[in-house]
Amino acid sequence: MKRPIPSDVVEKAARDKLTERGVTVEDIAKIVYDLQKPYNPSITMEACMKSTDAVLSKREIQHAVLVGVELDMLAEQKKLSEPLQSLVSSDEGLFGVDETIALGSVFGYGSIAVTTFGYLDKQKVGIINELDKRKPKVDTFLDDLVASIAANAAARLAHRGRDIEENLNRDEIKKREDEELIG
Amino acid sequence: MKRPIPSDVVEKAARDKLTERGVTVEDIAKIVYDLQKPYNPSITMEACMKSTDAVLSKREIQHAVLVGVELDMLAEQKKLSEPLQSLVSSDEGLFGVDETIALGSVFGYGSIAVTTFGYLDKQKVGIINELDKRKPKVDTFLDDLVASIAANAAARLAHRGRDIEENLNRDEIKKREDEELIG
Amino acid sequence: MKRPIPSDVVEKAARDKLTERGVTVEDIAKIVYDLQKPYNPSITMEACMKSTDAVLSKREIQHAVLVGVELDMLAEQKKLSEPLQSLVSSDEGLFGVDETIALGSVFGYGSIAVTTFGYLDKQKVGIINELDKRKPKVDTFLDDLVASIAANAAARLAHRGRDIEENLNRDEIKKREDEELIG
Amino acid sequence: MKRPIPSDVVEKAARDKLTERGVTVEDIAKIVYDLQKPYNPSITMEACMKSTDAVLSKREIQHAVLVGVELDMLAEQKKLSEPLQSLVSSDEGLFGVDETIALGSVFGYGSIAVTTFGYLDKQKVGIINELDKRKPKVDTFLDDLVASIAANAAARLAHRGRDIEENLNRDEIKKREDEELIG
Repeated sequence: MKRPIPSDVVEKAARDKLTERGVTVEDIAKIVYDLQKPYNPSITMEACMKSTDAVLSKREIQHAVLVGVELDMLAEQKKLSEPLQSLVSSDEGLFGVDETIALGSVFGYGSIAVTTFGYLDKQKVGIINELDKRKPKVDTFLDDLVASIAANAAARLAHRGRDIEENLNRDEIKKREDEELIG
Repeated sequence: MKRPIPSDVVEKAARDKLTERGVTVEDIAKIVYDLQKPYNPSITMEACMKSTDAVLSKREIQHAVLVGVELDMLAEQKKLSEPLQSLVSSDEGLFGVDETIALGSVFGYGSIAVTTFGYLDKQKVGIINELDKRKPKVDTFLDDLVASIAANAAARLAHRGRDIEENLNRDEIKKREDEELIG
Repeated sequence: MKRPIPSDVVEKAARDKLTERGVTVEDIAKIVYDLQKPYNPSITMEACMKSTDAVLSKREIQHAVLVGVELDMLAEQKKLSEPLQSLVSSDEGLFGVDETIALGSVFGYGSIAVTTFGYLDKQKVGIINELDKRKPKVDTFLDDLVASIAANAAARLAHRGRDIEENLNRDEIKKREDEELIG
Repeated sequence: MKRPIPSDVVEKAARDKLTERGVTVEDIAKIVYDLQKPYNPSITMEACMKSTDAVLSKREIQHAVLVGVELDMLAEQKKLSEPLQSLVSSDEGLFGVDETIALGSVFGYGSIAVTTFGYLDKQKVGIINELDKRKPKVDTFLDDLVASIAANAAARLAHRGRDIEENLNRDEIKKREDEELIG
C-alpha cells in the first residue's frame, strides 16, 4: 500500500493556498469576531484568531480547501472542460457544489455552524464580500470555504464559551463551599 | 405487516398542526416572496403560495412538522422529562435538535435551500420573528420548521424560474426561427 | 449578466461523462434493482432504468458528476497540484471530499437515500466494485457518484411505490363504495 | 435570562437514558470493534470503549439521545398524538426523522462517519439488531442513535489511528536520525 501523505504536508498546503489566494487567518478571525461580539461582548480578536487556527488544523477543512481552491485556479486558467468551466467561472446561481463542499466541512461543529454558514453565504461580510468583487479572479469555491471556516470558528467559540462559563461557575461554587467549610 | 398510515392522513395532520399553532400558508409565502423579490421582481404572492403548498406536500416535511410541533406542545404542557423539558422550553442556545430536524427536510431542494435556511434562522423575519416572541407558547421547533419550509419554497422557485426562463427562451428562439422560415 | 448555461447542455455533458467513464444507466439500474428487490419482489429492470434516468435529470446530480469526473480525469492526467494529486489518485482513506460531493446530491431523496448511499459506499456492489478495481484509471469520485445516483433512484422508487400502492387502495375502496351505492 | 442547564446534568441524563433502555457503552464498543478490526488488526476493546465514551461526551450526541429516547418512550406509553403515534410505534419505512436526528450528530466526525452510519443502519449488527427485535419496546429512534454513536466512535478511531501512526513514524525517524548522529 502506498504511504499516506503526512498530515503536516496537507495542513501546510491548505494554509498556503489560502494565503496565496489573499485570505489570512486574521481576515477570517474578523468575521468570527463580528459574529460572536453580540453574544459575548468580552470576546477578543486573539480568541477569534486561535479558534480560526484550530479549525484550520482539521483534516476535513484542509481537504475542502485544497479541492475548492484548485477548482477556482483551474477555472481562472481556463483549464476545466466545458460546461464546468463556464459554471465555475461565472459562479452560476444554481451551481451548488461550492456550497456542498463547504457544507461538508461545516457539520463538524454542529447545527449552529450550519446556520451561521448559511447566514454568511447570503450576507457576504468582510473578506467574503471582497472576494466576491475582485476581478478577474475566480473565487467561486473560496468564498464558501471562508464562510465555512468562519462559521466553524464561531460555533467552536460558542461551545467553548459555555464550557468555560460553567467551569468558572463550578469553581465559584466550590470556592464558596470551601469557604463555608472554613472555621 | 401493519398497514402504513395513508399519506393523505399524514399530510392533513401536518397542515392542521401548522394552522393550530398559528402559522398559515400565507405567512410562509410572505417570507418566500421577500426572499425571491430581489432576484425576480415579477414574482407574485400567488406563485409563493403555490410553491409553499407544493413543499408541504412532501413527506419528509410533514414528518418533521409532526415531530417538531409535538415536542413544542409537550414542552408547553410540561410533559417532557428533565432535562429535555428545560432544554426545549428555554430554547437553549446550544440545543440544536430543532435545527437538525428542520435541516433534514431542507436538503431536498439543494444547497440553496440549506443556505437560505441558515439565513432565515439567524434573521428571523416575518412570522418566524412573531413566533420567537410570543409567550408563554413554546415554539422552539416551529420557528425552524417554518424557516425550513420557506427556504425550500424559495429554492424551488429559483429552480423553477430557471426552467421557465429557459423554456421561454427556447420558444422565443423557435418563434423567431419559424418567422425566418416564413415567405 | 452572463447568460446561464442551458440546462440541456449541462444534462447532456453529465450523461456523456458517465458514458465516457464506462458507466451506463443500466449499470446503475442493476444496483437499484438489487437494492429494491427484497422490498418489492415485483420490481422490474425497466422501472429501475426509468428511476435512474429521472435522477440523472436533476441539476444537483449533474453538477456533482461534472465536478467529480473532472477531478478524476485531471488526477489521471496528473494535472492536479500536490498534495491534492496524491490524495485523489491514491483515494486516500481519510480524504472525504468525494463522499461529501456525492452526499450533497443524495439528500434530495430523503434520509433513506442517505443511509442507502452509506451502505453502497461500504459494500461496493456491481459497477461500483468494478470501478474500484480497474487500474490505472482514477475513479475516486466516480464510485461515490454512482453510489449516490443508485441510492437516489432506489429511494425514489420506495417513495413512488408507496404512492402507487395507496392510490390502488383508494381506487379499490372507491370501487367498493361505488358498488355499494348500486341498486 | 434563564441559567443554562449544566453540561454535566445533560451528559448524565443522556448516559442514564441509554442504560435505562438496555444499551451499554460496551454494547456500542463491540460494534466499533467489529467495524475497525479489518482496517486495524491490533485494535482493542479498551480503545473502542474509550472512543465510544469520548463520543458520548459531545453535546450534539447527548441532545440527540435525549430527544430520540423521549420519543420512543412516549410512543411506548401511547402518549403521542396521531398519526405520529402510529408512525413512531410501527417504525414505518418512509418515516425518516429518526435517521435525520441520528445523522445530525454523525456529521461531526466527517464523511466516513456518515457512510458508516448508513451501513450500520442497513446491516443492523450487534445490539442494533437486538433492539430491532425486542417487543413490545419501541426503539425507533434508539437503534439509529446507537448506529450513530458507533459510527462516530469508529470514525474517531480512524482519524486518531492516522495521527498516532504518523507520530510513531516521526518518532521512529527522529530516533534513527538521532542514532546516526551518535558517534
